[in-house]
Amino acid sequence: CHGRPGLRTAWAPLSAGFCSRGPAGAGRPELGPRPTSARQRDGIRNIVLSDPNKRNALSLAMLKSLQSDILHEAESKDLKVIIISAEGPVFSSGHDLKELTDERSPDYHAEVFQTCSEVMMLIQNHPVPVIAMVNGLATAAGCQLVASCDIAVASDKSSFATPGVNIGLFCSTPAVALGRAVPRKVALEMLFTGEPISAQEALLHGLLSKVVPEDQLEEETMKIAKKIASLSRPVVSLGKATFYRQLPQDLRTAYHLTSQTMVDNVALKDGQEGIKAFIQKRKPVWSQ
Amino acid sequence: CHGRPGLRTAWAPLSAGFCSRGPAGAGRPELGPRPTSARQRDGIRNIVLSDPNKRNALSLAMLKSLQSDILHEAESKDLKVIIISAEGPVFSSGHDLKELTDERSPDYHAEVFQTCSEVMMLIQNHPVPVIAMVNGLATAAGCQLVASCDIAVASDKSSFATPGVNIGLFCSTPAVALGRAVPRKVALEMLFTGEPISAQEALLHGLLSKVVPEDQLEEETMKIAKKIASLSRPVVSLGKATFYRQLPQDLRTAYHLTSQTMVDNVALKDGQEGIKAFIQKRKPVWSQ
Amino acid sequence: CHGRPGLRTAWAPLSAGFCSRGPAGAGRPELGPRPTSARQRDGIRNIVLSDPNKRNALSLAMLKSLQSDILHEAESKDLKVIIISAEGPVFSSGHDLKELTDERSPDYHAEVFQTCSEVMMLIQNHPVPVIAMVNGLATAAGCQLVASCDIAVASDKSSFATPGVNIGLFCSTPAVALGRAVPRKVALEMLFTGEPISAQEALLHGLLSKVVPEDQLEEETMKIAKKIASLSRPVVSLGKATFYRQLPQDLRTAYHLTSQTMVDNVALKDGQEGIKAFIQKRKPVWSQ
Repeated sequence: CHGRPGLRTAWAPLSAGFCSRGPAGAGRPELGPRPTSARQRDGIRNIVLSDPNKRNALSLAMLKSLQSDILHEAESKDLKVIIISAEGPVFSSGHDLKELTDERSPDYHAEVFQTCSEVMMLIQNHPVPVIAMVNGLATAAGCQLVASCDIAVASDKSSFATPGVNIGLFCSTPAVALGRAVPRKVALEMLFTGEPISAQEALLHGLLSKVVPEDQLEEETMKIAKKIASLSRPVVSLGKATFYRQLPQDLRTAYHLTSQTMVDNVALKDGQEGIKAFIQKRKPVWSQ
Repeated sequence: CHGRPGLRTAWAPLSAGFCSRGPAGAGRPELGPRPTSARQRDGIRNIVLSDPNKRNALSLAMLKSLQSDILHEAESKDLKVIIISAEGPVFSSGHDLKELTDERSPDYHAEVFQTCSEVMMLIQNHPVPVIAMVNGLATAAGCQLVASCDIAVASDKSSFATPGVNIGLFCSTPAVALGRAVPRKVALEMLFTGEPISAQEALLHGLLSKVVPEDQLEEETMKIAKKIASLSRPVVSLGKATFYRQLPQDLRTAYHLTSQTMVDNVALKDGQEGIKAFIQKRKPVWSQ
Repeated sequence: CHGRPGLRTAWAPLSAGFCSRGPAGAGRPELGPRPTSARQRDGIRNIVLSDPNKRNALSLAMLKSLQSDILHEAESKDLKVIIISAEGPVFSSGHDLKELTDERSPDYHAEVFQTCSEVMMLIQNHPVPVIAMVNGLATAAGCQLVASCDIAVASDKSSFATPGVNIGLFCSTPAVALGRAVPRKVALEMLFTGEPISAQEALLHGLLSKVVPEDQLEEETMKIAKKIASLSRPVVSLGKATFYRQLPQDLRTAYHLTSQTMVDNVALKDGQEGIKAFIQKRKPVWSQ
């Protein structure tokens, strides 16, 4: 169902093999209600983890549903930004432990962790920014999901933990995202003790972009989303892909790569439109 | 004196060639009292820098004694966590400058810095978490020691500096640990000016995991240590080794590596015990 | 005009091909006043962006003038530290957009971005520390300039932004420096929304070394500069080059490299002088 020629090479490898069946979930073979819901308006797609009774556990079904919602029409020019939020007091409690007993095979366990990793990488490789909007507790792979988003806004009642050690399952995959978001001494105390940190501490240490009172969470998140939705999609998309590509490089390679990106960006239709609009003191009109 | 077959490959390369003679220091050829002391109880080993008259300088003898105490029965299932603290108002003032004059050969100087580097890497490569408990000034290689521990708890009267420039000896080895713990602008101001930062600033910038009033330092540190001591040693050990291994990798490699670790962890006896205990709402019983 | 045999290999590759015509600007073929000014006293060189009417835009002329001022007699033992500041309420607004329209060729655009990147790398590769002293708004490549300095001191009225997305030109080159200074969630919110952060937030997240009231900005910056000017230039220079060299390496390589640096540093004339002066409780006398 993919394979459109216009697919950006920047994230093509990741989407290969995935099949977006869309927010409506048409054609899903699974029974029961979808564990996520999605709606899109004015360029902003809201994806909601909708299994509050199971504390929005990232079961394999939840992960695939989330993956599908993130990938759905990722190339469409109508999509500018994605917000991931959750129903209920728990953002997500991480993996569904019932899927990790020895009643399931190691191959099944491997599928769970690989799918989870694919979703986390998909967020970074996606052409539009992905914002986590957190109102509550995010633990283990739930904390990983927050750490993997490009931007994360949380209410001040939120908290974050990687408590896998308590149940004999060290949060090694969550630690990939957490260890790239916060200083290692903070990450290791969280990983070794399983104790939660507050939203304020998470902000201080780089896990969050912003913390707001609960009653302003949606407004503040939408402010950021609307701002991004008002921008040129090709420009934002080029910038996002380049950001993650240059970050692990040495300085010279990073500047070589980004200098070329800047030249390419200037040559984009929206690059010239933006610069000219600025010089002419008018509002730019983007191609997408 | 090493070479037990059960030695984890994760840290085997480091310990090769080291010889742990144990906290009691039996068989040491050196004269004089040991510059460190160590005692172990309930899985928690306390190693204390015990040369306050020399501001706990990291002389070659101190480094070797510290190395020996850290390596002592590292494989024993009775060891769950290590705490490194110090006697007196100075945690450690760094290298013993009398060992660095030209009365000693460059080979001797090289041995000092290499031994120091080995100790710092040993902390990260050790199978159990190592906590620094700091109550006072930590400078140069003393600051490096704090930065090298997995977790660091300090009293609010503690401070941290890399003042080597003042004596014509830039803190280049301490900068390895410092530069991986705090933002580079903070690290460089410390390195170029030699000025100390407070415990609060150190916490803010990621050098510390926690800051507490002096009278709560031991209690808070023991709380973390006891928590770790109550966990499964194989699980914590696998998690620690994997954390440092994935951190420098690119995201895809890191997830590939950690997804496999998660599958292995689930398959551990303690992995299954922990998950089942959670599902059955009972306390897990660890193998170690 | 370069090629002195004493040129440090650590930064030689960068300076190759550059030609320092000095603060006086003698021999410059360009018309009009120089967009930067520079004066040096007691080992401290002050370079000032001096085009406040154009918000100190980093035009190609400004970049080349800045490059020339930074490179001027970089090898001289009389130079100990560089401060970069700006005239007027805007530290720098980034690239001159008039140079980026399609009236100029892609080759010209490439020259702008490559020259800018060279200046940023030159700061890190320069033998003496470079301090940004910021009093006002620093945006886009202006924010990049602050992030690229070794140390950054700002007044509390300063602010920082990467607003390129607003004009269809994602701040991809500024993101190289910004993404290495602050947590990625902070960087991405700045890059995707273009919204400014305050000096206090910039300090919290690692973009700045220090924030002070406006009326203490010069005093505090000079305090740091004077301290560095009082140190041994060869020691500081060796330390700076080693710091940036070890930072991207794995831990073992970093310690191997820096242990050798420490041995070399101890063997420096100023290394021995400093250690002996300390032991003899007297003030050291540096060779440079």
